[in-house]
Amino acid sequence: MSTSPTQIAGIHDFSPEVMLKRKYIIHILETQFKQYGFLPMQTPAIEHLDVLTDKYGDEGEQLLFKILNSGNFLDKVSLQDYQKGYKALLPKITKKGLRYDLTIPLARYIATHRHTLSLPFKRFQIQPVWRAEKPQKNRYREFYQCDIDIIGSNSLICEAEMLTMIGQIANKLTLERVTIALNHRLIFKALSHQINAPEKEITLCRILDKLDKIGQEKVIAMLHKAGFTKSQIQHINWLFAAESSLEEGIQLLKKHLHPHEASRQAIADLEKIHSYLQAMQMSADLIAFTPTLARGLDYYTGTIFEVKVQGTSTSIAGGGRYDQLTTLFGLHPIPSIGLSFGLDRLYQVLEEKKLLPKHILSSTALLLIPLGTKEETPCLLHLKKLREAHIASEIYPAGHRLQKALSYAKKKNIPWVGIVGQEEMQKGLIALKNMTEGFQKSCALGDLIPMVKKNTLYSLAQ
Amino acid sequence: MSTSPTQIAGIHDFSPEVMLKRKYIIHILETQFKQYGFLPMQTPAIEHLDVLTDKYGDEGEQLLFKILNSGNFLDKVSLQDYQKGYKALLPKITKKGLRYDLTIPLARYIATHRHTLSLPFKRFQIQPVWRAEKPQKNRYREFYQCDIDIIGSNSLICEAEMLTMIGQIANKLTLERVTIALNHRLIFKALSHQINAPEKEITLCRILDKLDKIGQEKVIAMLHKAGFTKSQIQHINWLFAAESSLEEGIQLLKKHLHPHEASRQAIADLEKIHSYLQAMQMSADLIAFTPTLARGLDYYTGTIFEVKVQGTSTSIAGGGRYDQLTTLFGLHPIPSIGLSFGLDRLYQVLEEKKLLPKHILSSTALLLIPLGTKEETPCLLHLKKLREAHIASEIYPAGHRLQKALSYAKKKNIPWVGIVGQEEMQKGLIALKNMTEGFQKSCALGDLIPMVKKNTLYSLAQ
Repeated sequence: MSTSPTQIAGIHDFSPEVMLKRKYIIHILETQFKQYGFLPMQTPAIEHLDVLTDKYGDEGEQLLFKILNSGNFLDKVSLQDYQKGYKALLPKITKKGLRYDLTIPLARYIATHRHTLSLPFKRFQIQPVWRAEKPQKNRYREFYQCDIDIIGSNSLICEAEMLTMIGQIANKLTLERVTIALNHRLIFKALSHQINAPEKEITLCRILDKLDKIGQEKVIAMLHKAGFTKSQIQHINWLFAAESSLEEGIQLLKKHLHPHEASRQAIADLEKIHSYLQAMQMSADLIAFTPTLARGLDYYTGTIFEVKVQGTSTSIAGGGRYDQLTTLFGLHPIPSIGLSFGLDRLYQVLEEKKLLPKHILSSTALLLIPLGTKEETPCLLHLKKLREAHIASEIYPAGHRLQKALSYAKKKNIPWVGIVGQEEMQKGLIALKNMTEGFQKSCALGDLIPMVKKNTLYSLAQ
Repeated sequence: MSTSPTQIAGIHDFSPEVMLKRKYIIHILETQFKQYGFLPMQTPAIEHLDVLTDKYGDEGEQLLFKILNSGNFLDKVSLQDYQKGYKALLPKITKKGLRYDLTIPLARYIATHRHTLSLPFKRFQIQPVWRAEKPQKNRYREFYQCDIDIIGSNSLICEAEMLTMIGQIANKLTLERVTIALNHRLIFKALSHQINAPEKEITLCRILDKLDKIGQEKVIAMLHKAGFTKSQIQHINWLFAAESSLEEGIQLLKKHLHPHEASRQAIADLEKIHSYLQAMQMSADLIAFTPTLARGLDYYTGTIFEVKVQGTSTSIAGGGRYDQLTTLFGLHPIPSIGLSFGLDRLYQVLEEKKLLPKHILSSTALLLIPLGTKEETPCLLHLKKLREAHIASEIYPAGHRLQKALSYAKKKNIPWVGIVGQEEMQKGLIALKNMTEGFQKSCALGDLIPMVKKNTLYSLAQ
């Protein structure tokens, strides 16, 4: 291959600049996850195909990346197998696939390690997932999910913890005007009973889930088409009313929902969560009770939530309570709750809103530039001392034009350069230049470390 | 699927305990990488197959994981294609593969981004790679490499930087008795000229590379078998002499190597590196000049090195200078140097030698245990305050036996638990229990934060 290689559509390299920004976001997420007692965990990229199949619906199934068996993959394939077409051939030549999300692998993990695991199990997991999507804007074939889940607790404190953590994370990311849309899945159960169509609960959820994309009018048209009568639709019309505070939302539910096991449970849950949030002094503004919020996935069984940044259409996180997921792998139901942040979406929002602090791009604090080979020796010694003082530093080898070294510092956003020529060396000095503000000053080599430390707020992290 | 899922051989889940240890190692590596001015970078797991093929030798080629084309992968396959056998069918049904190492993707990255990249380019990359190995002890199909490379500098300061960094990393990991075996590839060029067999340079390297595994006797037998004469072997016999200091090594080379462009260059390089290491005050003990060190890969063109922990057979890192790698993707040769740490090997050595500090397993500093639902409210408020003070804390919801909560704390290595019952709540107190030392004391809720801060050295990281 002698031509320059192309990249696969929908799959990206992450340059140092992009990585520094991504790592900044991940650091904030991880720090909060740990503050709340979540521990890191990882599953492999490659899973047995039967772990992944029949989990993501027909559409998702198409998007699984499958790995060809190693060696002679035709070894056990007959001409007949081949002639039956690709669908029949598939299970003969592939037995493994790439992770599609972090939730099914978590359920598989719980089943695999059930004998050693103690509950509640609180884990965070930040790893890429792969989907064979048609490449299009903002849709990637390889992207990172940042998930936290609590497996094995039905306490609504879990809900309160997740909601307050979202607030904390938004705060640390300096993301203002974040709204957490909150709802309870049992409302749809209660409502479908109220309209005498309990079998239509999932249909109702799936159609409501499209509200953000297609609008109220089209959702109502879809409901008609799905067999909901005019009076049934009228009965649930209040769902489309404007979002409200959680407190008002609870009143709304009390007004519109008939007494039923599901409605009682939903209201009691939301009231309890409300009281927990008050105990944690969470600002009520953050939560918008949103009775139309449905969340596409079928597996939610309780509260559901989605995090939006006002003024953008993207949701940066979402999650909810689910109790049945572990039954997929032969376990009994375990009450659980999960929350997933989309790293790429967070990145995009922060980039658009210019909320990524500049200093994160300055990883190196100081570049030493010896003007001749003789000056390399004292520079190397000071380089060692600088690093011992936790100042990230580099040296630009002698034998190049000064301009080249300065341009290197500029491109790498290095705030300080220290130039050592013959004169400086004789006098034990260094010519310090501040690359952001442009000024230059002479400094005794011995004063270099306190000088840089005092004037560099960043790059000093251990 | 109703039975409990199995995992793929050679591929592992990483439990929270294992992950905390892995993250500790990665943190130390990354911190040093950044101290030395390396920036993070990532490439995708999935590459075009033609990026990966013909790069890893016949053996490596067999180990590439290939991804089946999406949709109807037989669409453009004829019966004839099928009948030609699996090797002929391969390029028709797969176009993508999984990353096998981080070096070829780096070379591809340089070629892809050559118009926007400025040299020297110093990047670190910590990502998993995949190889379809036969599962066996200590051989994984998915494992992490931690690579740093400097692309575009021929200064031997790069060598000195990599070597001192290895020392720093060993130091931070409290790994004593680490040895860096150092050699120069041009020695083999010079030697093969000296014995009038310049065409046998690569053969010599490949056979010497097996020394660690099969011993001197078998290496000499292999050399015989490969056509080296008795007198040729005698001529290079000094290579097998004991390792020496770099200084002695240079003398050894001066004694045994005839004047030749390659020998002059090798000696000059090593002398320069020696002087740089002295300037950086690196302990001479760390380096063992090892003239038999060959490093299997063909692409090295200058210094080569390998890091061993005395008393173990595993090498935890290795690398060297290479100049031609970018030509694989149509670029001109660029002088470069790389160093790769094996995360799994480092983990193994640190685990065996019990060098992983215990405190890294205590991610949460304090568990609050309200004994009744009424006590949840004050606990939630203090939970918020604790986290604001950067103390990672959790709450164990009421309604369980105290013993269950204590056992949760124990399993999670949480050093402090704070129990709040009716009596404590009335008096504004909390019963603090130290889980490691067992003592218990009563503490005013208001004093909780300074108390925990003072007595918890860890878990306070931002």
